[in-house]
Amino acid sequence: MKARVTVTLKNGVLDPQGQAIEGALGSLGFTGIGAVRQGKVFDIELTDCNKDTALNLLNDMCEKLLANTVIEDYTVSITG
Amino acid sequence: MKARVTVTLKNGVLDPQGQAIEGALGSLGFTGIGAVRQGKVFDIELTDCNKDTALNLLNDMCEKLLANTVIEDYTVSITG
Repeated sequence: MKARVTVTLKNGVLDPQGQAIEGALGSLGFTGIGAVRQGKVFDIELTDCNKDTALNLLNDMCEKLLANTVIEDYTVSITG
Repeated sequence: MKARVTVTLKNGVLDPQGQAIEGALGSLGFTGIGAVRQGKVFDIELTDCNKDTALNLLNDMCEKLLANTVIEDYTVSITG
């Protein structure tokens, strides 16, 4: 079973990396860009085949390691 | 218009960061994890409201800045 975990900064948390990318896109001539925010994505293969168990396990992984829940939000989805 | 660009390493490209996360999850007691690969996600706000134009613009951004197409794949989607 394959899963995807997406970790993004919460609203209101400063994102200097996103701002740098926004500036770089502007320098390259791209216009009409409002804001850019960068996050992380984890593609995880699980040997466990029960969907509910897998989702619980993934949420647990996010709380303990993958996301800093003070400043980051996460979403978990089963992709295959 | 909001868009999400997901950039992931191509199959076969070594991902030491993903391997480190896999090891760390194991150390924390998580079992049944096959493989972990890490990627990046960009949430981009566009002032342009035409979907096709936006998708072209985003693909162009990926080719020029957001992804290293030698080792990375990217997917573009309109999220809102």
